[in-house]
Amino acid sequence: MQAEHINPFLRAVSNAFSTMLDCEVRRGEIKLSESKTQCYPVSGVIGLSGKAAGMVVINLSEEVALRVASTMLMMEIAELDDDVIDAVGELANMIAGQAKAELEEYDLSVSLPNVITGAAHTIQFPSASRPISVPFDTDFGPLNLEVGFEPACVEANA
Amino acid sequence: MQAEHINPFLRAVSNAFSTMLDCEVRRGEIKLSESKTQCYPVSGVIGLSGKAAGMVVINLSEEVALRVASTMLMMEIAELDDDVIDAVGELANMIAGQAKAELEEYDLSVSLPNVITGAAHTIQFPSASRPISVPFDTDFGPLNLEVGFEPACVEANA
Repeated sequence: MQAEHINPFLRAVSNAFSTMLDCEVRRGEIKLSESKTQCYPVSGVIGLSGKAAGMVVINLSEEVALRVASTMLMMEIAELDDDVIDAVGELANMIAGQAKAELEEYDLSVSLPNVITGAAHTIQFPSASRPISVPFDTDFGPLNLEVGFEPACVEANA
Repeated sequence: MQAEHINPFLRAVSNAFSTMLDCEVRRGEIKLSESKTQCYPVSGVIGLSGKAAGMVVINLSEEVALRVASTMLMMEIAELDDDVIDAVGELANMIAGQAKAELEEYDLSVSLPNVITGAAHTIQFPSASRPISVPFDTDFGPLNLEVGFEPACVEANA
Protein backbone atom coordinates (compact mmCIF):
# COMPACT_ATOMS: atom_id res chain seq x y z
CA MET A 1 0.00 0.00 0.00
CA GLN A 2 1.26 3.48 -0.87
CA ALA A 3 0.95 6.24 1.73
CA GLU A 4 -1.04 8.57 -0.52
CA HIS A 5 -3.91 6.08 -0.65
CA ILE A 6 -4.56 6.36 3.07
CA ASN A 7 -5.73 10.00 2.99
CA PRO A 8 -9.22 9.37 1.56
CA PHE A 9 -9.80 6.84 4.35
CA LEU A 10 -8.61 9.26 7.04
CA ARG A 11 -10.96 11.96 5.74
CA ALA A 12 -13.78 9.43 5.58
CA VAL A 13 -13.34 8.51 9.26
CA SER A 14 -13.33 12.18 10.30
CA ASN A 15 -16.37 12.98 8.15
CA ALA A 16 -18.38 9.97 9.25
CA PHE A 17 -17.84 10.80 12.91
CA SER A 18 -18.33 14.55 12.62
CA THR A 19 -21.31 14.64 10.28
CA MET A 20 -23.21 11.48 11.23
CA LEU A 21 -22.27 11.17 14.88
CA ASP A 22 -21.45 14.75 15.86
CA CYS A 23 -18.25 13.40 17.41
CA GLU A 24 -14.82 14.93 16.94
CA VAL A 25 -11.87 12.66 16.15
CA ARG A 26 -8.16 13.30 16.64
CA ARG A 27 -5.81 11.30 14.47
CA GLY A 28 -2.71 9.64 15.90
CA GLU A 29 0.45 8.59 14.14
CA ILE A 30 0.16 6.73 10.82
CA LYS A 31 2.24 3.59 10.76
CA LEU A 32 2.75 0.44 8.78
CA SER A 33 0.67 -2.19 10.46
CA GLU A 34 2.53 -4.90 12.30
CA SER A 35 1.33 -8.42 12.74
CA LYS A 36 -1.40 -8.86 15.33
CA THR A 37 -2.03 -5.25 16.27
CA GLN A 38 -5.78 -5.52 16.90
CA CYS A 39 -6.60 -4.33 20.34
CA TYR A 40 -10.33 -3.63 20.66
CA PRO A 41 -13.14 -6.20 20.74
CA VAL A 42 -15.37 -4.94 17.89
CA SER A 43 -14.24 -4.75 14.25
CA GLY A 44 -16.17 -3.69 11.18
CA VAL A 45 -14.57 -5.06 8.00
CA ILE A 46 -15.47 -4.28 4.40
CA GLY A 47 -13.80 -5.06 1.10
CA LEU A 48 -13.16 -2.78 -1.86
CA SER A 49 -12.49 -4.05 -5.36
CA GLY A 50 -12.29 -2.86 -8.94
CA LYS A 51 -8.99 -1.71 -10.46
CA ALA A 52 -7.53 -2.27 -7.00
CA ALA A 53 -8.20 -4.64 -4.13
CA GLY A 54 -8.57 -3.40 -0.58
CA MET A 55 -9.93 -4.15 2.85
CA VAL A 56 -10.89 -1.66 5.55
CA VAL A 57 -10.97 -2.58 9.24
CA ILE A 58 -12.46 -0.18 11.79
CA ASN A 59 -11.56 -1.56 15.19
CA LEU A 60 -13.53 -0.14 18.13
CA SER A 61 -13.59 -0.37 21.87
CA GLU A 62 -16.91 -1.66 23.21
CA GLU A 63 -17.63 1.82 24.53
CA VAL A 64 -17.15 3.42 21.11
CA ALA A 65 -19.27 0.74 19.41
CA LEU A 66 -22.12 1.29 21.90
CA ARG A 67 -21.97 5.06 21.57
CA VAL A 68 -21.89 4.89 17.75
CA ALA A 69 -25.01 2.69 17.77
CA SER A 70 -26.76 4.75 20.45
CA THR A 71 -26.14 7.95 18.48
CA MET A 72 -27.19 6.48 15.11
CA LEU A 73 -30.38 5.02 16.55
CA MET A 74 -31.05 7.87 18.98
CA MET A 75 -31.61 5.49 21.89
CA GLU A 76 -29.45 4.21 24.71
CA ILE A 77 -27.88 0.84 23.86
CA ALA A 78 -25.94 -0.87 26.64
CA GLU A 79 -24.88 -4.22 25.18
CA LEU A 80 -23.42 -5.59 21.95
CA ASP A 81 -26.71 -6.61 20.32
CA ASP A 82 -27.74 -6.83 16.66
CA ASP A 83 -28.38 -3.08 16.53
CA VAL A 84 -24.74 -2.47 17.40
CA ILE A 85 -23.62 -4.97 14.75
CA ASP A 86 -25.72 -3.16 12.14
CA ALA A 87 -24.43 0.24 13.24
CA VAL A 88 -20.77 -0.82 13.06
CA GLY A 89 -21.38 -2.44 9.66
CA GLU A 90 -22.98 0.80 8.46
CA LEU A 91 -20.03 2.82 9.81
CA ALA A 92 -17.61 0.60 7.85
CA ASN A 93 -19.81 0.97 4.78
CA MET A 94 -19.83 4.76 5.05
CA ILE A 95 -16.06 4.98 5.46
CA ALA A 96 -15.36 2.67 2.52
CA GLY A 97 -18.06 4.33 0.41
CA GLN A 98 -16.70 7.81 0.91
CA ALA A 99 -13.09 6.74 0.33
CA LYS A 100 -13.98 4.97 -2.91
CA ALA A 101 -15.61 8.15 -4.21
CA GLU A 102 -12.28 9.93 -3.76
CA LEU A 103 -10.37 7.08 -5.39
CA GLU A 104 -12.51 7.12 -8.52
CA GLU A 105 -9.64 6.26 -10.86
CA TYR A 106 -9.75 2.72 -9.42
CA ASP A 107 -13.45 2.23 -10.25
CA LEU A 108 -14.07 0.65 -6.84
CA SER A 109 -17.18 -0.89 -5.42
CA VAL A 110 -17.77 -2.08 -1.87
CA SER A 111 -18.52 -5.57 -0.57
CA LEU A 112 -20.98 -6.45 2.17
CA PRO A 113 -19.56 -5.54 5.58
CA ASN A 114 -18.99 -8.05 8.38
CA VAL A 115 -18.66 -7.27 12.07
CA ILE A 116 -16.34 -9.33 14.26
CA THR A 117 -16.70 -9.47 18.01
CA GLY A 118 -14.61 -11.23 20.63
CA ALA A 119 -12.24 -9.94 23.26
CA ALA A 120 -9.22 -11.78 21.91
CA HIS A 121 -9.76 -11.60 18.17
CA THR A 122 -6.93 -10.64 15.83
CA ILE A 123 -7.31 -9.59 12.19
CA GLN A 124 -4.35 -10.05 9.88
CA PHE A 125 -3.70 -9.12 6.28
CA PRO A 126 -1.68 -11.38 3.98
CA SER A 127 2.02 -10.81 4.64
CA ALA A 128 2.57 -9.29 1.19
CA SER A 129 -0.02 -6.54 1.57
CA ARG A 130 1.58 -4.08 4.06
CA PRO A 131 -1.56 -2.44 5.49
CA ILE A 132 -1.45 0.98 7.15
CA SER A 133 -2.75 1.41 10.69
CA VAL A 134 -3.92 4.68 12.23
CA PRO A 135 -5.13 5.21 15.82
CA PHE A 136 -7.79 7.80 16.52
CA ASP A 137 -8.90 9.30 19.78
CA THR A 138 -12.54 10.39 19.66
CA ASP A 139 -15.01 12.01 22.02
CA PHE A 140 -16.54 8.51 22.34
CA GLY A 141 -13.20 6.78 23.06
CA PRO A 142 -10.38 5.18 21.07
CA LEU A 143 -10.44 3.33 17.75
CA ASN A 144 -8.03 2.04 15.13
CA LEU A 145 -8.35 2.21 11.37
CA GLU A 146 -6.48 -0.38 9.34
CA VAL A 147 -6.46 -0.31 5.54
CA GLY A 148 -4.86 -2.57 2.95
CA PHE A 149 -5.00 -1.33 -0.62
CA GLU A 150 -3.28 -2.81 -3.66
CA PRO A 151 -3.67 -0.72 -6.81
CA ALA A 152 -1.70 -2.95 -9.13
CA CYS A 153 -4.05 -5.88 -8.68
CA VAL A 154 -4.11 -7.75 -11.99
CA GLU A 155 -6.69 -10.54 -11.95
CA ALA A 156 -5.92 -13.58 -14.04
CA ASN A 157 -9.60 -14.45 -14.41
CA ALA A 158 -10.94 -10.94 -14.98
CA MET B 1 -29.35 -13.90 -0.62
CA GLN B 2 -31.05 -16.27 -3.05
CA ALA B 3 -30.36 -19.99 -2.79
CA GLU B 4 -29.17 -20.35 -6.40
CA HIS B 5 -26.22 -18.05 -5.69
CA ILE B 6 -24.69 -20.44 -3.19
CA ASN B 7 -23.88 -23.20 -5.69
CA PRO B 8 -20.81 -21.55 -7.26
CA PHE B 9 -19.35 -21.15 -3.75
CA LEU B 10 -20.03 -24.78 -2.85
CA ARG B 11 -18.32 -25.96 -6.04
CA ALA B 12 -15.43 -23.61 -5.35
CA VAL B 13 -14.86 -25.11 -1.87
CA SER B 14 -14.91 -28.65 -3.26
CA ASN B 15 -12.59 -27.77 -6.13
CA ALA B 16 -10.11 -25.85 -3.99
CA PHE B 17 -9.78 -28.73 -1.56
CA SER B 18 -9.72 -31.52 -4.12
CA THR B 19 -7.41 -29.94 -6.71
CA MET B 20 -5.09 -27.83 -4.57
CA LEU B 21 -5.06 -29.83 -1.35
CA ASP B 22 -5.92 -33.35 -2.54
CA CYS B 23 -8.52 -33.45 0.24
CA GLU B 24 -12.07 -34.68 -0.18
CA VAL B 25 -14.92 -32.63 1.28
CA ARG B 26 -18.44 -33.75 2.19
CA ARG B 27 -21.08 -31.07 2.31
CA GLY B 28 -23.59 -30.86 5.15
CA GLU B 29 -26.99 -29.24 5.19
CA ILE B 30 -27.39 -25.75 3.71
CA LYS B 31 -29.15 -23.35 6.05
CA LEU B 32 -29.87 -19.70 6.52
CA SER B 33 -27.22 -18.43 8.87
CA GLU B 34 -28.33 -17.50 12.34
CA SER B 35 -26.76 -14.86 14.48
CA LYS B 36 -23.45 -15.81 16.07
CA THR B 37 -22.90 -19.19 14.45
CA GLN B 38 -19.12 -19.06 14.19
CA CYS B 39 -17.57 -22.00 15.89
CA TYR B 40 -13.94 -22.45 14.82
CA PRO B 41 -11.00 -20.21 15.71
CA VAL B 42 -9.65 -19.33 12.23
CA SER B 43 -11.66 -17.41 9.62
CA GLY B 44 -10.65 -16.27 6.16
CA VAL B 45 -12.87 -13.42 4.93
CA ILE B 46 -12.94 -11.82 1.50
CA GLY B 47 -15.31 -9.38 -0.15
CA LEU B 48 -16.85 -9.48 -3.61
CA SER B 49 -18.24 -6.45 -5.36
CA GLY B 50 -19.42 -5.26 -8.74
CA LYS B 51 -23.09 -5.55 -9.80
CA ALA B 52 -23.60 -7.30 -6.45
CA ALA B 53 -22.04 -7.05 -3.00
CA GLY B 54 -20.92 -10.13 -1.13
CA MET B 55 -18.70 -11.46 1.61
CA VAL B 56 -17.30 -14.97 1.95
CA VAL B 57 -16.24 -16.43 5.30
CA ILE B 58 -14.37 -19.74 5.44
CA ASN B 59 -14.28 -20.75 9.10
CA LEU B 60 -11.78 -23.47 10.00
CA SER B 61 -10.77 -25.50 13.00
CA GLU B 62 -7.14 -24.99 13.97
CA GLU B 63 -6.39 -28.51 12.72
CA VAL B 64 -7.83 -27.77 9.28
CA ALA B 65 -5.98 -24.45 9.05
CA LEU B 66 -2.67 -26.12 9.93
CA ARG B 67 -3.21 -28.95 7.46
CA VAL B 68 -4.21 -26.55 4.68
CA ALA B 69 -1.02 -24.54 5.22
CA SER B 70 1.17 -27.64 5.61
CA THR B 71 -0.19 -29.07 2.35
CA MET B 72 0.12 -25.82 0.40
CA LEU B 73 3.68 -25.24 1.57
CA MET B 74 4.71 -28.91 1.56
CA MET B 75 6.16 -28.68 5.07
CA GLU B 76 4.87 -29.51 8.52
CA ILE B 77 3.42 -26.45 10.28
CA ALA B 78 2.39 -26.91 13.91
CA GLU B 79 1.26 -23.45 15.04
CA LEU B 80 -0.82 -20.56 13.73
CA ASP B 81 2.01 -18.50 12.29
CA ASP B 82 2.14 -16.05 9.37
CA ASP B 83 2.41 -18.92 6.88
CA VAL B 84 -0.95 -20.22 8.09
CA ILE B 85 -2.47 -16.75 7.83
CA ASP B 86 -1.24 -16.46 4.24
CA ALA B 87 -2.49 -19.94 3.37
CA VAL B 88 -5.98 -19.30 4.77
CA GLY B 89 -6.10 -15.93 2.98
CA GLU B 90 -5.12 -17.66 -0.26
CA LEU B 91 -7.79 -20.32 0.28
CA ALA B 92 -10.44 -17.59 0.71
CA ASN B 93 -9.09 -15.88 -2.40
CA MET B 94 -9.33 -19.06 -4.47
CA ILE B 95 -12.88 -19.80 -3.34
CA ALA B 96 -14.09 -16.25 -4.05
CA GLY B 97 -12.14 -16.11 -7.31
CA GLN B 98 -13.62 -19.31 -8.67
CA ALA B 99 -17.16 -18.40 -7.58
CA LYS B 100 -16.95 -14.98 -9.22
CA ALA B 101 -15.96 -16.60 -12.52
CA GLU B 102 -19.22 -18.59 -12.42
CA LEU B 103 -21.22 -15.49 -11.49
CA GLU B 104 -19.94 -13.49 -14.44
CA GLU B 105 -23.22 -11.65 -15.00
CA TYR B 106 -22.45 -9.66 -11.84
CA ASP B 107 -19.06 -8.48 -13.09
CA LEU B 108 -17.48 -9.18 -9.70
CA SER B 109 -13.98 -8.54 -8.44
CA VAL B 110 -12.45 -9.65 -5.17
CA SER B 111 -11.13 -7.56 -2.27
CA LEU B 112 -8.01 -8.29 -0.27
CA PRO B 113 -8.61 -11.16 2.15
CA ASN B 114 -8.26 -10.89 5.92
CA VAL B 115 -7.72 -13.72 8.36
CA ILE B 116 -9.25 -13.57 11.82
CA THR B 117 -7.97 -15.68 14.70
CA GLY B 118 -9.19 -16.00 18.26
CA ALA B 119 -10.94 -18.80 20.10
CA ALA B 120 -14.04 -16.78 20.91
CA HIS B 121 -14.47 -14.64 17.82
CA THR B 122 -17.85 -14.25 16.14
CA ILE B 123 -18.47 -12.89 12.64
CA GLN B 124 -21.85 -11.38 11.88
CA PHE B 125 -23.43 -10.03 8.74
CA PRO B 126 -25.78 -7.04 8.81
CA SER B 127 -29.22 -8.21 9.89
CA ALA B 128 -30.74 -7.39 6.50
CA SER B 129 -28.38 -9.61 4.50
CA ARG B 130 -29.51 -13.18 5.32
CA PRO B 131 -26.27 -15.09 4.67
CA ILE B 132 -26.24 -18.81 3.93
CA SER B 133 -24.16 -21.17 6.06
CA VAL B 134 -22.91 -24.60 5.00
CA PRO B 135 -20.90 -27.05 7.13
CA PHE B 136 -18.37 -29.33 5.45
CA ASP B 137 -16.62 -32.37 6.79
CA THR B 138 -13.22 -32.85 5.16
CA ASP B 139 -10.39 -35.36 5.38
CA PHE B 140 -8.54 -32.62 7.32
CA GLY B 141 -11.44 -31.96 9.75
CA PRO B 142 -14.54 -29.72 9.88
CA LEU B 143 -15.14 -26.27 8.41
CA ASN B 144 -18.01 -23.86 7.78
CA LEU B 145 -18.64 -21.74 4.72
CA GLU B 146 -20.73 -18.63 5.16
CA VAL B 147 -21.70 -16.41 2.22
CA GLY B 148 -23.70 -13.20 2.00
CA PHE B 149 -24.56 -12.05 -1.52
CA GLU B 150 -26.84 -9.20 -2.53
CA PRO B 151 -27.40 -8.98 -6.28
CA ALA B 152 -29.68 -5.97 -6.23
CA CYS B 153 -27.06 -3.70 -4.71
CA VAL B 154 -27.68 -0.24 -6.12
CA GLU B 155 -24.97 2.16 -5.09
CA ALA B 156 -25.95 5.78 -4.72
CA ASN B 157 -22.41 6.97 -5.40
CA ALA B 158 -21.60 4.61 -8.27
